[in-house]
Amino acid sequence: MTSSNLAAATPYVYDSSDAAFQRAVRVVPGGIYGHQGPSEGCYIPRSAFPLFSARAEGTRFWDVDGNEFIDYMCGYGPNVLGYGDAEVTAAARAQAELGDVVTIPSTTMVDFAELLVDTVASADWAFFAKNGGDVTTLAIMTARAATGRRGIVFIEGYYHGVAPWTQKLDYPGVLDQDVAGNIEVPWNDLDALRETFSAHRGQIAALIAQPYQHHNFADNVLPAPDYWAGVRRLCDEFGVVLIVDDVRAGFRLDLAGSDHYYGFQADLICFCKAIANGYNVSALCGRDGLREAVSSITYTGSYWMSAVPFAAGIATLTKLREIDGPALFRRLGTRLTEGLVDVAAANGFRLVASGEPALFYLRIADDDSLMLHQRWIAECVRRGVFLTSHHNHFINAALTDADIDRTFDIADQAFRALRESQ
Amino acid sequence: MTSSNLAAATPYVYDSSDAAFQRAVRVVPGGIYGHQGPSEGCYIPRSAFPLFSARAEGTRFWDVDGNEFIDYMCGYGPNVLGYGDAEVTAAARAQAELGDVVTIPSTTMVDFAELLVDTVASADWAFFAKNGGDVTTLAIMTARAATGRRGIVFIEGYYHGVAPWTQKLDYPGVLDQDVAGNIEVPWNDLDALRETFSAHRGQIAALIAQPYQHHNFADNVLPAPDYWAGVRRLCDEFGVVLIVDDVRAGFRLDLAGSDHYYGFQADLICFCKAIANGYNVSALCGRDGLREAVSSITYTGSYWMSAVPFAAGIATLTKLREIDGPALFRRLGTRLTEGLVDVAAANGFRLVASGEPALFYLRIADDDSLMLHQRWIAECVRRGVFLTSHHNHFINAALTDADIDRTFDIADQAFRALRESQ
Repeated sequence: MTSSNLAAATPYVYDSSDAAFQRAVRVVPGGIYGHQGPSEGCYIPRSAFPLFSARAEGTRFWDVDGNEFIDYMCGYGPNVLGYGDAEVTAAARAQAELGDVVTIPSTTMVDFAELLVDTVASADWAFFAKNGGDVTTLAIMTARAATGRRGIVFIEGYYHGVAPWTQKLDYPGVLDQDVAGNIEVPWNDLDALRETFSAHRGQIAALIAQPYQHHNFADNVLPAPDYWAGVRRLCDEFGVVLIVDDVRAGFRLDLAGSDHYYGFQADLICFCKAIANGYNVSALCGRDGLREAVSSITYTGSYWMSAVPFAAGIATLTKLREIDGPALFRRLGTRLTEGLVDVAAANGFRLVASGEPALFYLRIADDDSLMLHQRWIAECVRRGVFLTSHHNHFINAALTDADIDRTFDIADQAFRALRESQ
Repeated sequence: MTSSNLAAATPYVYDSSDAAFQRAVRVVPGGIYGHQGPSEGCYIPRSAFPLFSARAEGTRFWDVDGNEFIDYMCGYGPNVLGYGDAEVTAAARAQAELGDVVTIPSTTMVDFAELLVDTVASADWAFFAKNGGDVTTLAIMTARAATGRRGIVFIEGYYHGVAPWTQKLDYPGVLDQDVAGNIEVPWNDLDALRETFSAHRGQIAALIAQPYQHHNFADNVLPAPDYWAGVRRLCDEFGVVLIVDDVRAGFRLDLAGSDHYYGFQADLICFCKAIANGYNVSALCGRDGLREAVSSITYTGSYWMSAVPFAAGIATLTKLREIDGPALFRRLGTRLTEGLVDVAAANGFRLVASGEPALFYLRIADDDSLMLHQRWIAECVRRGVFLTSHHNHFINAALTDADIDRTFDIADQAFRALRESQ
């Protein structure tokens, strides 16, 4: 396939992954669901990617064929300190010795809520659940209960989980009634937001948005300098609850919340992913004015007061504070993306890195089909750098400069393979 | 308060719980949410119940004041083998050493799906999520995708989680559009079901029901002998997807599913609670005919492929098969409920036990206010038997005959205290 010895020596094979997938497809719908849906038509082409992991440690995982990967997806976010972080594991085990899901909650829940209120600038309280979508749903229900209004304003191209209200009308299983009252506005457009609020005066319960536009299949877009301050003013003027979906970016930009990072204050803020280094917990945090409304909602779940994830969350946030995680992610992500852009340029490609460095998004420019980019990503993956084609990536605290150096080497091999196959 | 030395010697105090609650209420909306909402007006009156647990083991937990309880709530279901079961803990730890939430799933997911397909009669496949409500929601979306219809038929007084579609119109944060198309029919009434299906011919996507009526605040009602066979026939006749919500009863009546226990086959069956002895996982299982429909739904979550709960679930179901858990729960639950009825009668009270013995529901008869029952429950709790007033209870495999004997003693003290305070 290529004349490069380095490139030729390393590409991975996935025979054991393929065999496991043949088992999976019999008993799991589609074999694997979620991002990793394995078909060649998918943006994660099956032939380039491993399908099943055998173990993970630090910033790496190994697939069932024994292939080793530097992992820039971090479990799609939860891995923020490194897989199997010793301090988080110790805290979780100590709590597990005492109890996890018990008929009445542990005071570990209170400890974790206190830590969040102390850490997150816009948090006067915390309500815990299990998934990002649990808390985005609770947020819109709270806004509706508080305002007596029904409309929700979204940013175009939004993703806030998989509850029917946040899906799209043409998605299977979704009804028109599920998404009635949903209104979309363009990102970074205060005029459009004012027009929408004006046109639906007294009818909009909430605006829900990610702190910056980290969509799939498109360069990620930071907020314009005056955008969030303007949004905050408009929400105040029209009595709209401002909900920040910090599920993906939360605790990677700023431990005080991504709203704090961009200089404003949300009314409600949704956390998940990075909150407990992979232990299963999410949190809705909010301001005092919405405490009564959130308390009025009927909302609970079978495992929602399990104590082990609370203990893991305390250990995770405590360590992120001690090491200044966000500063580390910014430094590592900046070095990585700038270096990758240089490696691309040396090979005659223009690589565009967008979004915040802690959650960088990559795209090879000058190819609207995105196929060139997808092929380069595949060449990286087959050599041990796990990236995905059209989704933002994630930095974790176990990533080292040596890992980044190795990433540059593999990226270079991948670009050379790409050139030679053109 | 009472002249009984035994009763007087034991009632618990909850000073540390109260102190923790004072902390909690500052940082958690309502202090505690879910069933354990702590107010005197609640059906779990705050003065009678502990609010926070310190540790749990086997069939017992200890609150933060050091009070010990034989626990008949089992974390509201998840504790099925005993808190901290050694075999489940070992399996979970072994998997945790390898990895939990990793960018690509572990084959442990496939192992668990294979075990469910092998165990559950109506399962040709399994889709995993994190909460009962995740899979009841996926079930109705799947039914809508499969049928192209929108209506959902519920049994009166239904509870299938907290997603807006399964709440009620007068609940805060719920819109009319969330529950539009929901139709209720009475339990055990085939004529009413036929009439409803006929009146809405071609419009009903699914019937969703628990395997028997285990509602709160009412005696639980088993299916009439011909009910489920008749429901199955009607669903086939009208092309309606039959969804069994086995979140609460699943794996306590029959490891092959509560539909199997009652002699019929569901199209979709929802499991959570007892599936992994407290580790966070739920599953939608279903028949081949719905595999394509469920695969078409956009449905995923941050931690949904975490491997530790899959390993715990495998250990849990394997042990439940080895010990024949459902037979044990039936024997223990029957002895317990029959004995409690006798203890009540000896004290001049008529106690009614309803539902399946593994999930028994209790009510002191001849008091429509339910306050007499609530007071008896409180006296039991204050002496170390944790029951709740108007919710079904749960048996776990760590419960012993000695625990049941002690329960009879405490129930007797509680009845005596009740008599003396009348």
